[in-house]
Amino acid sequence: MSESSNDRLEGALPITSADEAAGVVDNGMTVAISGFGSVGYPKSVPRALDGHQSLTILSAGSVGGEIDEKLVKSGTIDRRAHFQSRPAIRDAINAGDVAFFDRHVSQFGDELRFNGGLDVDIAIIEAVAVGDDWFIPSTSIGHAPSMVRAADRLILEVNHAQPVALKSIHDVYERTAPPHREPIPIDGPIDRIGNARIGFDPDALNAVVETNTADDPYTFRTPTASDQAIATNLGSFLGSEIQSNPMFSSTVSMQFGVGSLGNALMGTLTEIEFGDRTVIYFGEVFQDGLLNMLDSGRLAGASATSLALSNAGQERFFDEIDQYAKNVVLRPADLSNNPALIERFGVIGVNSAIEVDCYGNANATHIGGIRMISGIGGGGDFVRNSRLSIIALPSTAANGAVSRVVPMIPHVDHSEHDVSVIVTEHGVADLRGCSPRERAAKILEIADPAFRNDLEAYRDRAAEGRGQTPHDLETAFDWHIEWNE
Amino acid sequence: MSESSNDRLEGALPITSADEAAGVVDNGMTVAISGFGSVGYPKSVPRALDGHQSLTILSAGSVGGEIDEKLVKSGTIDRRAHFQSRPAIRDAINAGDVAFFDRHVSQFGDELRFNGGLDVDIAIIEAVAVGDDWFIPSTSIGHAPSMVRAADRLILEVNHAQPVALKSIHDVYERTAPPHREPIPIDGPIDRIGNARIGFDPDALNAVVETNTADDPYTFRTPTASDQAIATNLGSFLGSEIQSNPMFSSTVSMQFGVGSLGNALMGTLTEIEFGDRTVIYFGEVFQDGLLNMLDSGRLAGASATSLALSNAGQERFFDEIDQYAKNVVLRPADLSNNPALIERFGVIGVNSAIEVDCYGNANATHIGGIRMISGIGGGGDFVRNSRLSIIALPSTAANGAVSRVVPMIPHVDHSEHDVSVIVTEHGVADLRGCSPRERAAKILEIADPAFRNDLEAYRDRAAEGRGQTPHDLETAFDWHIEWNE
Repeated sequence: MSESSNDRLEGALPITSADEAAGVVDNGMTVAISGFGSVGYPKSVPRALDGHQSLTILSAGSVGGEIDEKLVKSGTIDRRAHFQSRPAIRDAINAGDVAFFDRHVSQFGDELRFNGGLDVDIAIIEAVAVGDDWFIPSTSIGHAPSMVRAADRLILEVNHAQPVALKSIHDVYERTAPPHREPIPIDGPIDRIGNARIGFDPDALNAVVETNTADDPYTFRTPTASDQAIATNLGSFLGSEIQSNPMFSSTVSMQFGVGSLGNALMGTLTEIEFGDRTVIYFGEVFQDGLLNMLDSGRLAGASATSLALSNAGQERFFDEIDQYAKNVVLRPADLSNNPALIERFGVIGVNSAIEVDCYGNANATHIGGIRMISGIGGGGDFVRNSRLSIIALPSTAANGAVSRVVPMIPHVDHSEHDVSVIVTEHGVADLRGCSPRERAAKILEIADPAFRNDLEAYRDRAAEGRGQTPHDLETAFDWHIEWNE
Repeated sequence: MSESSNDRLEGALPITSADEAAGVVDNGMTVAISGFGSVGYPKSVPRALDGHQSLTILSAGSVGGEIDEKLVKSGTIDRRAHFQSRPAIRDAINAGDVAFFDRHVSQFGDELRFNGGLDVDIAIIEAVAVGDDWFIPSTSIGHAPSMVRAADRLILEVNHAQPVALKSIHDVYERTAPPHREPIPIDGPIDRIGNARIGFDPDALNAVVETNTADDPYTFRTPTASDQAIATNLGSFLGSEIQSNPMFSSTVSMQFGVGSLGNALMGTLTEIEFGDRTVIYFGEVFQDGLLNMLDSGRLAGASATSLALSNAGQERFFDEIDQYAKNVVLRPADLSNNPALIERFGVIGVNSAIEVDCYGNANATHIGGIRMISGIGGGGDFVRNSRLSIIALPSTAANGAVSRVVPMIPHVDHSEHDVSVIVTEHGVADLRGCSPRERAAKILEIADPAFRNDLEAYRDRAAEGRGQTPHDLETAFDWHIEWNE
């Protein structure tokens, strides 16, 4: 135990090496780690876990290659939840070598705390500063507070590569437990109701490890022509919707899903005619696409649980962090993704999917119905609870060889009950108030023209059998069977 | 316009005949009607709508044969949402003669009010008493408040067959609109935060019609041996869960789905060892099964949006209504089914399904993936937001000829992300923390033994193709294709 008094370490802390800290992790343990949007995850202690065996690793969102590449290749991870985005872990999951399950972001914190089948032994959390009974999280918060509550023991990694000034964007508010859980006392998407610190029981603190390693964040591809066309269609639809819908007469709160398409769509918000409305982002990730909007003053503020910026975006953000801290807030994931807040703020949610069927169900996780990509993450929170729920996706994949509008999807993450509008580069299908047959007519119109004849043939063949939602089960998966081969 | 001063009519009201009232409904209009759980719906004016054409009829829940039988047979209804439970409307929907769409109960009120693709011309609401600018709803509330807000005009049916004393169980609280929607200021499931009246704009009131007709409510079948076995398995699981889970250490709030199985399960709550815990019902329907629990004092109270009792149950309830009013509350459906309240109260939700697949997805609406039964109703609200979400269903249908545990379901209402536990008469599959392959192992164990070999063969065949969620798309629907024929 050494005494430290730099600006990151306060009080008598059990400062150790990463190897020493990793020594308290026994094989077979369940380890909860910070990280969301591929940032804010611990780096040194996971590296030192190489050689351990049969670990269950729980994270609120995606984490870096230190965990989901290296510890997968070393065979350290047996079980993993509930989101990931690296090839090595994905391959191991799909080979059946790592047991993986994915849950809604909004609920995972409660599942950690209240008997969700998960008994957390140790939490390993990245911080920018630590005191005797508190720490300040780094570039993401995720479920760090719930992990600290759920875990028997705590290891903190203080990362000198992350600016201490991050504390100015954090708003940690912890909810009480059901059945006497209070309503969340917040009035607007970027209001602050907490502070920068997460408290802990000093007796549970096993180790504080110092590190100095940058995040290994997302990279975003340059927007494609298809992205641009989707953005144009979305912008035109939204421009008309906010004019006609009284819910959006003064304020428009929006969310965009994680990833390159979401990032590209965020960036095109500048093109929408918002008039004198206040525009606010209320989502789970703050991506590069929002920076220009904030800089121009078009965006009044942003709430998220992760600064899921690219390296260039992080640099830009850190350089002006005091400026950005005026209207950017990071919250625990059970607030950023909270169903009640999404609903109360009247959020317009824009999320993507692998494919949609002709009735408006969406598959966001399983290619061919079988192979996991990343997990549902927070998509289900926003698709389900947004007052206007939009799925935006290109009409094809694999350079046009595969239609993303299909007769039936072999895995359903978002049901027809949850999806109101679908946008592709070919147009907008506004499904509100429509029966399944009417939805099919609209969705087929925004499919890729090369596939429309086949889709219409399926629709007509299915309709022969009548029913509320006609399907021809013998041929519903013909495309998927072909593609899976 | 006549003056009336009985205990149901107060002030100068436009009292007319049902025929006269129906005269203000033009062909092609969108008509929102009260009713939920087959009670509290208008009777006389709908009867007088016979002969009208091309109406869209919107209700928050199921309504009586006056609407969903007679007006279907007369060809009056072109479009219908978002729940129904009578053979005539079901047949018309599945024949494609009536366009039907179903949405989550919790969201339908907002969709009526805020551009959900529905422009309501007239609301027809059953009441037990009416004044100049208020009325008191009858045996259900449903989305009556949102319907009144959304509609241009209002017709009220004052039903002398419903006791005025119903006012003592109503708690109408209306939420403000997003984006400045306040958190719901309620501390517990049976607290009261409103009053018995729904207000309206007197200029919108077109007609008040007096009627004297009892509800045409649900009938419940006698619990079968399978129901009893499911109840025993559920009781045993819950008894152990509430012992071990700190969330249930002092209070247990439960919800049961609509219908005979839900009613049977409610009735067996008496057999669970709750110790000195306070047990409260927080659901959408108050069914007969709760009466004994309340009478014995085992149930501390109940919150719902509908008194979906049988005729015998209504009689029993009405006879002692002052006594029941002490701890039974009816609320608008956007509160009874509110995601935030279900979550805050830590509800244990027990809902049923037509079938589940081997990974835990559930189909609650479409037989064979095609033919609509009733609609998702509030099932999605409770399955998704309960802190412990249980699907209870018999392992077979059609006298054992059909398995309700199937390789893949052709329609998904509740996804694997939402379902934590499945119960059949053969046991309990606790899926928390399990990967899809692990879930399959547990779910197959509670399938009917006659189908287990086939299910295992499918599971093994599917596993050859690997993937996170193995499926053999070529044979996934073999059973359904056979059954549909």
